Amino acid sequence: MNPPTARTKVRRIPTNAHYDAATLHAIIDEAYLCHIAFSDDKGTHCIPTACWRDGDYLYIHGSNGSRMLKRLMADECCVTITHLDGLVMARSALSHSMNYRSGMVYGRFEVVEGAAARHAMGTFMDKLAPGRQAEIRPGSDKEYAATTVMRIPLAEAACKARSGAPSDDEEDLAWPAWAGVLPFMRAQLAPVADPGCTITAPDYVCRWQK
Amino acid sequence: MNPPTARTKVRRIPTNAHYDAATLHAIIDEAYLCHIAFSDDKGTHCIPTACWRDGDYLYIHGSNGSRMLKRLMADECCVTITHLDGLVMARSALSHSMNYRSGMVYGRFEVVEGAAARHAMGTFMDKLAPGRQAEIRPGSDKEYAATTVMRIPLAEAACKARSGAPSDDEEDLAWPAWAGVLPFMRAQLAPVADPGCTITAPDYVCRWQK
Repeated sequence: MNPPTARTKVRRIPTNAHYDAATLHAIIDEAYLCHIAFSDDKGTHCIPTACWRDGDYLYIHGSNGSRMLKRLMADECCVTITHLDGLVMARSALSHSMNYRSGMVYGRFEVVEGAAARHAMGTFMDKLAPGRQAEIRPGSDKEYAATTVMRIPLAEAACKARSGAPSDDEEDLAWPAWAGVLPFMRAQLAPVADPGCTITAPDYVCRWQK
Repeated sequence: MNPPTARTKVRRIPTNAHYDAATLHAIIDEAYLCHIAFSDDKGTHCIPTACWRDGDYLYIHGSNGSRMLKRLMADECCVTITHLDGLVMARSALSHSMNYRSGMVYGRFEVVEGAAARHAMGTFMDKLAPGRQAEIRPGSDKEYAATTVMRIPLAEAACKARSGAPSDDEEDLAWPAWAGVLPFMRAQLAPVADPGCTITAPDYVCRWQK
């Protein structure tokens, strides 16, 4: 990960900024989705898509017909992932905040082809459910030929995160309002088997709920 | 909400598209954050920020010094919210999917000023915790003068959503892999009171965890 550039240097509350790979990797690895901002002749777009990481790259994939993927081959973009961790309830109205972790990556995607594309898709499946790749019907040559896999280097990037208690001004500390954090997390609910599924649930399904 | 335009008409899996206000409102009302895509002389950016809805507008706010807010006054942008509802585990590798609900809004923000800005911030506080506005130290004239509130009309917009079971091709239905959905939800964990807080937790704090 490179040192901050003119567009990754965090200016507002710079003490919340992180420019290290470990922080960025953890944010990506906990995410299943990113939002990608890119521009074309119709304007600027913000599109959600599945993502995963392998080494120092973030990967996405889609149909060859995707207008976004075609456009991403041609120009730079910005990829952002945000985890919301809690509402920060301060004693004064304008000191309220949120706890979060976000990562932004600027750059240009490159197409990954052939064996590298298949390997990347395997890495994605391993993220969804370790071991599942050996159970499912593998992608055919025809299916892979219709799929575009792309990656962007985790080079020009920055993270920003807030955690912990509210930070009211000294003179507000005696104000009689409850102060603290109302936390969120992403919970995993009971798996819902396909009505036509007669296969015993594998380990990663049995241990999903938490 | 307007009929689909060249940039809101969903082309990939158009049966997942929704163009009605009720669907969009529900997606915004369940969100605390949106991602905003906009462009300037440094490129295209994707920035997360808090959001809320009042009527047919999505609102954001920030410091007057925010580069994003200044830029949003000058040009169009795209605001996107995505809720991830589950991993869709199909029998074939490339039929895997995700269940989600996303809303996109195109247009231009306008600044909300004076009493309308204070009212909008009150609406945001009501979303965070109904009743809390009467307990906290209200924003001062000086604080409001340093804060920019903006809104974008929910006019040029589209939603896309997937729900339910995997959809494998007929010839894959007998493949011996577990198939179904691994669902997510946003859980609310036990509130964490500020170490210096001696106020009894109000109702919205006591009922937070779920």
